[in-house]
Amino acid sequence: MPGETKNYNLVILGGGPAGLVAASMATESGKTVALVDNHHELGGAGINTGTVPSKTLRETAMALSGLQSRNLYGVDLSLRREVTIADFLGHERHIKAAFNADLSRRLEADKADIYNGTGSFLDPHTVSVSPGFIAPALSRPAAGEDIFLRGENILIATGSSPVRPELFPFGKGEIYDSDTILQLDRIPKTLAVIGAGVIGSEYACTFSALGAVVHVIDGRDKLLPFLDAEISVALAVAMERSGVVFHWNETVRQCVVAESGVVTLSLSSDLWLTVDAVLVAAGRKSNTGRLNLPLAGVATGERGIIPVDEHFRTNVPHIYAAGDVIGFPALASTSMEQGRRATRHALGMEVNAISPLLPNGIYTIPEISMVGETEESLRKQGVDYVVGWARYKDNARGRIIGDEDGFLKLLFRRDNMKLAGVHVMGEQVTEIVHIGLMAMLTGSSAEIFVEACFNVPTLSQLYKTATMHAIRQAGAR
Amino acid sequence: MPGETKNYNLVILGGGPAGLVAASMATESGKTVALVDNHHELGGAGINTGTVPSKTLRETAMALSGLQSRNLYGVDLSLRREVTIADFLGHERHIKAAFNADLSRRLEADKADIYNGTGSFLDPHTVSVSPGFIAPALSRPAAGEDIFLRGENILIATGSSPVRPELFPFGKGEIYDSDTILQLDRIPKTLAVIGAGVIGSEYACTFSALGAVVHVIDGRDKLLPFLDAEISVALAVAMERSGVVFHWNETVRQCVVAESGVVTLSLSSDLWLTVDAVLVAAGRKSNTGRLNLPLAGVATGERGIIPVDEHFRTNVPHIYAAGDVIGFPALASTSMEQGRRATRHALGMEVNAISPLLPNGIYTIPEISMVGETEESLRKQGVDYVVGWARYKDNARGRIIGDEDGFLKLLFRRDNMKLAGVHVMGEQVTEIVHIGLMAMLTGSSAEIFVEACFNVPTLSQLYKTATMHAIRQAGAR
Repeated sequence: MPGETKNYNLVILGGGPAGLVAASMATESGKTVALVDNHHELGGAGINTGTVPSKTLRETAMALSGLQSRNLYGVDLSLRREVTIADFLGHERHIKAAFNADLSRRLEADKADIYNGTGSFLDPHTVSVSPGFIAPALSRPAAGEDIFLRGENILIATGSSPVRPELFPFGKGEIYDSDTILQLDRIPKTLAVIGAGVIGSEYACTFSALGAVVHVIDGRDKLLPFLDAEISVALAVAMERSGVVFHWNETVRQCVVAESGVVTLSLSSDLWLTVDAVLVAAGRKSNTGRLNLPLAGVATGERGIIPVDEHFRTNVPHIYAAGDVIGFPALASTSMEQGRRATRHALGMEVNAISPLLPNGIYTIPEISMVGETEESLRKQGVDYVVGWARYKDNARGRIIGDEDGFLKLLFRRDNMKLAGVHVMGEQVTEIVHIGLMAMLTGSSAEIFVEACFNVPTLSQLYKTATMHAIRQAGAR
Repeated sequence: MPGETKNYNLVILGGGPAGLVAASMATESGKTVALVDNHHELGGAGINTGTVPSKTLRETAMALSGLQSRNLYGVDLSLRREVTIADFLGHERHIKAAFNADLSRRLEADKADIYNGTGSFLDPHTVSVSPGFIAPALSRPAAGEDIFLRGENILIATGSSPVRPELFPFGKGEIYDSDTILQLDRIPKTLAVIGAGVIGSEYACTFSALGAVVHVIDGRDKLLPFLDAEISVALAVAMERSGVVFHWNETVRQCVVAESGVVTLSLSSDLWLTVDAVLVAAGRKSNTGRLNLPLAGVATGERGIIPVDEHFRTNVPHIYAAGDVIGFPALASTSMEQGRRATRHALGMEVNAISPLLPNGIYTIPEISMVGETEESLRKQGVDYVVGWARYKDNARGRIIGDEDGFLKLLFRRDNMKLAGVHVMGEQVTEIVHIGLMAMLTGSSAEIFVEACFNVPTLSQLYKTATMHAIRQAGAR
């Protein structure tokens, strides 16, 4: 083997949420860590293309469009017509740069060795790094020279990338995926979003808030089918009212880019749609293509997804995988938990299995969040349940902020009134869902919300209102 | 006794948060209920003069002043110079009217009898109502004719009123208390706030956000001394930076109103202060003066406060009291819990003692919230503890919304790492404090935050960051 081989307790492939948490965890425990990433900037999709940028844009869109202040007063704060792409993206770029600087500083402080380049397996313990996308401050190897890393344990956290169906001529005209959508140089007047998944729905709302006419095209017949059906319908209604046009049971047959850059889509129902830009949000695939996984003996499944056990071990016991690369739910939040647990297990530290109670936060407008069971999943399990409802507009804080549509829905098991599911739509829901999460993690029942005293006026009070409603429902039966 | 006497299971004096919850509770249980209130509109201080109006104004001030959108983008949304009092108060009046209409409808639906007038005791079971402030739709008695109500149980929930020290010539010039401040007809350029309690601090922040130069005068030497000292200092610093001037250890010796309405204050340090308006926020006294309590045999204490036992019973076993009228903490949130528990106990229903874990939400700018112990109270009890810290600006969501000052501080008991206190300053803190409340109500320790998966990006993640910090601190000792 040419060149020097450096030895580490843990070699991490990928510097996104899973890899970064893993690096901190391992260095804090006094272990030697190498982190390999082939992007100019650390942070992965979490910081650079996905979670943080899309949520920053949403926040900016909310503020610039005046949606945040709605009915608050007679004055119209709406500045929509003056919005330029520079305003829209300026804040996002600023936030991203601040995060990147932080991450680099933190890893330096953590004493992890950062290798800028593309890693691939030579054998189950050895990774070669081909330098690439070198950011001078971070580069360890001289450009062009491969370096070899030997890890007692290896964590694969290389993330995922948007799938690019061949139907769409990427590179010609205004056709984007979720990794490239932030590169657009103006806000399109009309936008087609292909795929009504989480990413497609979030961007549809953001661009709609910024004044674009947004068409969402999906081969299925409803929005985010993993949601509780009532929430799914309420979100679709709210999006339609804000101007989003849904095309359900519809696929794209053809996509033609005109000289001018304008895109025409031919749909399966014979509808023709001409738009300024297209966002293809047709799912993601794991970034495993360059890893040479066969040399390590690591198995993969559909779309490159790496199967793991409950400790995030691949079929090769000292090789772990965490984050988007292992598939669903592929959220920054879960990726961080997976990275932490994988590392603790690899280093022989005490570790609990990850809780199945993973909240889901969807940054549409309005925001959606849920944790636990849906009505549908409870029915499927044959569990008898009671529903408690509370509307934002009957809540003091909800009324103050002028949220007319928001609601909280709690599901309790009828036999013991334990909280089984939380479903909420409206402002701040990705925060307040955690109140229900805490109750569920501790196996609490309706009583905790009856007995607790909540600040007034807060949206959190909705838990008490919805619980009282559920108790009345239970009694009324 | 002249006239008819009507009999009820429960007679409630006062239609604020405590009385309204009590009325719903009792009617839902099939009991007959009379509710006596001497205001044009139901809701008490919670809806009409205190909680909701002040928080609505704060929200409006945040939006109008652009504070809500701070660093979100290059565009300056600040409309401060265009704000008129009509904008400022319009939303507040709209919200209040909507609440009032709701409350009346709800009570009608609940089948409680509403008597508009002033109630006073004739004997321990009988209350006479002198009609007054009659709103036609609600009035039961013909105007001028006293009516007599006999209650098996009686709940006193008449609330409190601002204390008006004689020093201040109310009625002359621009001198207000917290009940009348909403009647001002322009935003003053300079405002003196007498008393740095919760009410004084909240209005100081709101008017400062609207561009007024605000002077806060207090005889003590620090802000909100019941807060954890670190939070108290951080809030004072943030308020000072936003332009509030504090005068500590300072009392008003003289208050002179000029012909023009301008007010000059002479302070104990020989400072003279001339301002456009004065808000006297020098404490509140219980509304017990008109109740003829001696005829019922009910004892009162300082400032008219009615002492109660753990079931909110006065010294007369079938007469209960709840809300501001029984003194500290005098919050809408606690008043509602007290009203509910008093009613359940009075009606012989099962009821748990109120939890000592009462969160406190202070709607200053920035917002403050706390629940449980402070560092000071733990030290006083000789409890060894560990502090965990997390800053908004190191949190993805905190960075997105641009909150530079916010922080979460968790206090854990060192022996078992159980959560003992939550202290938090910044946006949405009155909501996210309830995540800690749930953990405390269930006796949870640091582990719950280590193991839980939080949505990303949320402020709620701060719980995990602060807990990790605390664990490192505990280990480092």
